Amino acid sequence: MQTQILERMESEVRTYSRSFPVVFTRAQNARLTDEEGREYIDFLAGAGTLNYGHNNPQIKQALLDYLAEDNIIHGLDFWTAAKRDYLEALEEVVLKPRGLDYKVQFPGPTGTNAVEAAIRLARNAKGRHNIVTFTNGFHGVTMGALATTGNRKFREATGGVPTVGGSFLPFDGYLGEGADTLDYFEKLLGDKSGGLDIPAGVIVETVQGEGGINVAGLEWLKRLERICRDHDILLIADDIQAGCGRTGKFFSFEHAGITPDIVTNSKSLSGLGLPFSQVLMRPELDVWKPGQYNGTFRGFALAFTTAAAALRTYWQDDAFEQEVTRKGEVVAKRFQKIAGMLRELGIEASERGRGLMRGIDVGSGDIADKITHRAFENGLVIETSGQDGEVVKCLCPLTITDEELERGLDILETSAREALS
Amino acid sequence: MQTQILERMESEVRTYSRSFPVVFTRAQNARLTDEEGREYIDFLAGAGTLNYGHNNPQIKQALLDYLAEDNIIHGLDFWTAAKRDYLEALEEVVLKPRGLDYKVQFPGPTGTNAVEAAIRLARNAKGRHNIVTFTNGFHGVTMGALATTGNRKFREATGGVPTVGGSFLPFDGYLGEGADTLDYFEKLLGDKSGGLDIPAGVIVETVQGEGGINVAGLEWLKRLERICRDHDILLIADDIQAGCGRTGKFFSFEHAGITPDIVTNSKSLSGLGLPFSQVLMRPELDVWKPGQYNGTFRGFALAFTTAAAALRTYWQDDAFEQEVTRKGEVVAKRFQKIAGMLRELGIEASERGRGLMRGIDVGSGDIADKITHRAFENGLVIETSGQDGEVVKCLCPLTITDEELERGLDILETSAREALS
Amino acid sequence: MQTQILERMESEVRTYSRSFPVVFTRAQNARLTDEEGREYIDFLAGAGTLNYGHNNPQIKQALLDYLAEDNIIHGLDFWTAAKRDYLEALEEVVLKPRGLDYKVQFPGPTGTNAVEAAIRLARNAKGRHNIVTFTNGFHGVTMGALATTGNRKFREATGGVPTVGGSFLPFDGYLGEGADTLDYFEKLLGDKSGGLDIPAGVIVETVQGEGGINVAGLEWLKRLERICRDHDILLIADDIQAGCGRTGKFFSFEHAGITPDIVTNSKSLSGLGLPFSQVLMRPELDVWKPGQYNGTFRGFALAFTTAAAALRTYWQDDAFEQEVTRKGEVVAKRFQKIAGMLRELGIEASERGRGLMRGIDVGSGDIADKITHRAFENGLVIETSGQDGEVVKCLCPLTITDEELERGLDILETSAREALS
Amino acid sequence: MQTQILERMESEVRTYSRSFPVVFTRAQNARLTDEEGREYIDFLAGAGTLNYGHNNPQIKQALLDYLAEDNIIHGLDFWTAAKRDYLEALEEVVLKPRGLDYKVQFPGPTGTNAVEAAIRLARNAKGRHNIVTFTNGFHGVTMGALATTGNRKFREATGGVPTVGGSFLPFDGYLGEGADTLDYFEKLLGDKSGGLDIPAGVIVETVQGEGGINVAGLEWLKRLERICRDHDILLIADDIQAGCGRTGKFFSFEHAGITPDIVTNSKSLSGLGLPFSQVLMRPELDVWKPGQYNGTFRGFALAFTTAAAALRTYWQDDAFEQEVTRKGEVVAKRFQKIAGMLRELGIEASERGRGLMRGIDVGSGDIADKITHRAFENGLVIETSGQDGEVVKCLCPLTITDEELERGLDILETSAREALS
Repeated sequence: MQTQILERMESEVRTYSRSFPVVFTRAQNARLTDEEGREYIDFLAGAGTLNYGHNNPQIKQALLDYLAEDNIIHGLDFWTAAKRDYLEALEEVVLKPRGLDYKVQFPGPTGTNAVEAAIRLARNAKGRHNIVTFTNGFHGVTMGALATTGNRKFREATGGVPTVGGSFLPFDGYLGEGADTLDYFEKLLGDKSGGLDIPAGVIVETVQGEGGINVAGLEWLKRLERICRDHDILLIADDIQAGCGRTGKFFSFEHAGITPDIVTNSKSLSGLGLPFSQVLMRPELDVWKPGQYNGTFRGFALAFTTAAAALRTYWQDDAFEQEVTRKGEVVAKRFQKIAGMLRELGIEASERGRGLMRGIDVGSGDIADKITHRAFENGLVIETSGQDGEVVKCLCPLTITDEELERGLDILETSAREALS
Repeated sequence: MQTQILERMESEVRTYSRSFPVVFTRAQNARLTDEEGREYIDFLAGAGTLNYGHNNPQIKQALLDYLAEDNIIHGLDFWTAAKRDYLEALEEVVLKPRGLDYKVQFPGPTGTNAVEAAIRLARNAKGRHNIVTFTNGFHGVTMGALATTGNRKFREATGGVPTVGGSFLPFDGYLGEGADTLDYFEKLLGDKSGGLDIPAGVIVETVQGEGGINVAGLEWLKRLERICRDHDILLIADDIQAGCGRTGKFFSFEHAGITPDIVTNSKSLSGLGLPFSQVLMRPELDVWKPGQYNGTFRGFALAFTTAAAALRTYWQDDAFEQEVTRKGEVVAKRFQKIAGMLRELGIEASERGRGLMRGIDVGSGDIADKITHRAFENGLVIETSGQDGEVVKCLCPLTITDEELERGLDILETSAREALS
Repeated sequence: MQTQILERMESEVRTYSRSFPVVFTRAQNARLTDEEGREYIDFLAGAGTLNYGHNNPQIKQALLDYLAEDNIIHGLDFWTAAKRDYLEALEEVVLKPRGLDYKVQFPGPTGTNAVEAAIRLARNAKGRHNIVTFTNGFHGVTMGALATTGNRKFREATGGVPTVGGSFLPFDGYLGEGADTLDYFEKLLGDKSGGLDIPAGVIVETVQGEGGINVAGLEWLKRLERICRDHDILLIADDIQAGCGRTGKFFSFEHAGITPDIVTNSKSLSGLGLPFSQVLMRPELDVWKPGQYNGTFRGFALAFTTAAAALRTYWQDDAFEQEVTRKGEVVAKRFQKIAGMLRELGIEASERGRGLMRGIDVGSGDIADKITHRAFENGLVIETSGQDGEVVKCLCPLTITDEELERGLDILETSAREALS
Repeated sequence: MQTQILERMESEVRTYSRSFPVVFTRAQNARLTDEEGREYIDFLAGAGTLNYGHNNPQIKQALLDYLAEDNIIHGLDFWTAAKRDYLEALEEVVLKPRGLDYKVQFPGPTGTNAVEAAIRLARNAKGRHNIVTFTNGFHGVTMGALATTGNRKFREATGGVPTVGGSFLPFDGYLGEGADTLDYFEKLLGDKSGGLDIPAGVIVETVQGEGGINVAGLEWLKRLERICRDHDILLIADDIQAGCGRTGKFFSFEHAGITPDIVTNSKSLSGLGLPFSQVLMRPELDVWKPGQYNGTFRGFALAFTTAAAALRTYWQDDAFEQEVTRKGEVVAKRFQKIAGMLRELGIEASERGRGLMRGIDVGSGDIADKITHRAFENGLVIETSGQDGEVVKCLCPLTITDEELERGLDILETSAREALS
């Protein structure tokens, strides 16, 4: 494989190519192929961007159909037929059946852009600067979003500029068994000298992806919504990684029966890995004035097209949800088994997750790395997350076949055994 | 045209659909078509994103070829054949012939992301927080980039959070005839109590696009580079709008014979309107540690593919440059004529620009709006820029045919006359 | 009493004159006299500024002696005999006997100035921007200090400018019985994505004055020191209110046997109510360059003079400490009795404090106000603290006579009964 | 002289004791005496804090009278007879005769505290965060004030924390002869993308003290006031150094016939070098809520007492103004002569100032230091200011006798000659 120019020209900031130092060429559903023809099962799936698999045939066909004629590709924030079609799909397939009433902003095609727009909207709507976020939360790295992202790696690489306007509170479970971390939040809200500026909004991932597959309890989420309502604080669900079916529902917050005031989506939203994001907001929160937030690529018609196809292909009924849930249980059981095996090897390991967003916490990044490196040698692309990279995580395509899923899990189990025995 | 769902569901933040309230469907080179079959000449071209026209055949063919097989579409920051191919094209076609030695960062596919990465890199490299930017500069709206963007519309929509780390100085010409605004910069640098924190970098557009087609003089740019070198300050050329041939050279700073330390590109970089951006940096500035800046869509293989095709199609020799320059002169002459006509009507109008980045300053946003509204009625999509929208600007595809160019200019001239007589 | 001009000319920001709407004229030790000759016992003592009482005779004599000749009064940061004399007293009477080795900065005469200097020194010494502070902490209201002050009243009056560089953590006891709040701090320090930027320093009051007479446990303080040492974080003891003997030791942190890296003193430091403050720092932390922090009144010779007199009068042996401790127990017992009485009236009341820094938490600001208003009518000046003003606090002069102390306590007890029966 | 303990214990931050390495003991009017009995003429006068001289007899007598009985010394923000008396003097002697209607805030006794309060008040009153300040402005070093202070020495000593909420614009004359720097300000205000956030207020010294005795033209000040009025921006006159008669009027802005919305005073306000400051505000701007800004030493009764005495002693008629003006001309003439002499020695020197706030710009800090060091050897305490310390400045007591003034000027002239020949 020819990698010289890649090593020479690409900035040292590159990261995944260090874990997987091959040149990938082909990809289909849950399979990746490198330049030398070697195949890998893909349990990373674009870090949750490829919920419908690589080169999903139906979604790709919609793209090819669109490209077959000279349909507009780049449309700034013009009205285009592609955008209209996407909005129709969103309304009919997603919002109406769930009884949700949201307006939509296309803030630029990346997750961090959606978060920047969402928190700014919350601030403008409430006239307050503070945004509460949680330990191990990840919401992007542009300076506005970074104020809500806990990871020191990014926070220490701002050239010394402190972030402004974010307050971290402990996520569900952070203070240990038996402590409801929302007690602390609620106490601070009521405390006139606790140091917490009354926030405009709270931004939360119902399952923290980068943070280590940390799963917020459903009661905790309900209470969080209630606290927000009681204190006139906006609840922002960052569903960039956990949304689009990853947890077994289209929106990850559906499990808890809550209705966020603002929702961010990206990653799998386009269905094919195309850059695309949206901010959903309760209509009365749409305090934007024309043009107050912009960006060149907020009308990428190819993504509208594939996103609409994805919604219509997978979300017209609950079959896909059930399939994800079923596969999630398969992964959960196997992860529990692997965790048990690791515990027998003296490693404090445990399984956690929701739907097909699952991880095995093996207690240290070193151990996790050993496992994932070995897995890669054995033909499985799988990554870690968590503050120390201590969680081996499965974000396989939701469309993965049972055979590939089993094969991937087999590789992982074998690799864990090989790596640590 | 069915626009109800667009009006109902899209946030009030939408803007271009207010100026051009039609639903666009087809687009080819410099022609846009709306749903009712009406055609428009496109002098906006995705705000400079479609330098090679809508649905450019060669570039699109590269996309279709890539899509014809199951090549990887979304690759995080994996090594992919598509990325490698792009780097090869960039090196061979662009950098080597110009004697430039840059490393490349793919920071996420939008311009604002590139700017966030660029200024953060400068801060990390120099250990200083300040970034000097110029009046009427536009560098994006995420909070980091916004510190360098002058537009009040965005700056006042942050929910009260002040931006941090940017200092505005007067752009070339801002202090009137005869005053070299860099005198002020240089004086401040040497003044221990002038209030200017020694900057890590200076970010500059050689021609300000959103700011009103303000053209920095070549001597001014040379002096700016010299000042930066003398004071160990990094020169960041934001070539997001002015780059990719818009001014008649691939990089807009080539006219001045300067070599920025850091360059940002986006908009037309992908060649087809696909979200894509890059940061170029002198190799010794690549102080990033692995993973210190990230983003999901920094390995969008379709954009690598079309970007490589664009470079190979248009930049192997200087024919395209000459063509852009020639067309630029056509526009310049006609704009001067229109400006002259406006002056006869008592409007203080003047032409300015470089290459095919040109504008007529008509002195007020109201007058400019009258002209562009009339132009739209007459079949021309054209927008304004400048602090008050007082500059009617031409950002037509560089690939526009002479006939379309003339037709567009005719419409504009007629519309200006009609609107103001 | 003539108060018209006061009401007309003084800004609405005035506060104590609303609780005590009389014009005070004379004051001696623990007695205040108003213009109409009415006497009050003073349990407020300048919010802890008059530990040695009003017009303390020995200290005042030193002032008069100094003023008797044309000794320099205002000396910028000149070397003066008065400053030298103070440093000698500080070293001989305070530092040496306690085995402390500190250098001294006179940063301007107010507490907030001392805090601004202290946290800036910590940041400069460690090259990090973050300062950890605690819920209900009060460290001043200038913008740098305000980042570490929890009170919303001040934080919301910055015209929307968020403070930068402070992170609030729960003070001892804040998470309820059985929870050691330092577990949370230590977890965050070790958590690479917990959102806590590694701090340069931690600023703490061992007993929070304005925050509600919240007493940090001695083991908690020891553990805090240990955590700081383990993580190379500077421990800053803000002893502005709790220092100068208030808790029964000269430095309030002596009880815990810890040695902060940086100490701030003000309030009672001058001994007579003259504006005066200092920052003590371990010698190796003195990274200031000449003149990097300044202020006009950092060489107020009258305060040097009275401060030296205070040290020599009260701190040559441990007699004064013992007296304070004894009186503290008197107050504690009576406060417990009053709290018991209140509980019988159905009010959830409790006593807390250390030395002569004591309070009765009566659960609500309304109840506390009723008591203190009645007390004022009955001849006692006493204030509340805590986030809701729910703590009736005693900060009487340490030099109060037993008779006056008993009389003040009698009035308080009577007033509480009268107010709430 | 015994200086060991001073050198050992005082922080490296100390500065004046490096220029004047003696221990001062006595001081009377414009004379300082060191421990060895050496006398110095004082042209520094506490950096403008001792306008009425050291140990001014009348003012000091008021202090002694107050201290003769047990009058309250420290009164938090209680109503005291001393405060009332000061307000009466301020109203009768200063405000009424000048037709000024201001309310008064006592924000803590230092200048930086007054500035913090003033800019916060402006922000709260206008609901905007930005404060415009000028090149070479000095307004204090606490973090809020520092945002408006240009000096890099302080700005670079914040441990990397950038200041927030200040925008620097060129002071009068900064852009050279013939350029009115307010053209730039006015252009920026009208420019929607110039990068200047509409400010809540503009803070200005009519004569910049620390910045180098830079004198704002009276027309420039009038235009500045007009611009502020036209744009609903508050004009804040920082009269901490230039006020209290220094320029020949009580308020330095009287020369220009303007009426600032907010005024800050400190330094010479107490008349005797006691820490004291005030914020004056137009009554309708008094948007403070009770207690929104505080500080322990905002009711220092000794300073009220001496300040009232100073007003009544010197400002009942215009005799003192005339005397200051006369002496100012004496200094001006001699400074012009010295500057002429320096020019003959090849040094580009010039005189400037207003009233008794005067300097000789000698072009470099090295030259200025040579002169002031020699002057000190010859018995004159005189300091430099300006960004490089290039301005030898005279801030002698306004009460200096003609003989002492002449003697000081003689020493300076001789020293300049000696130092540079």
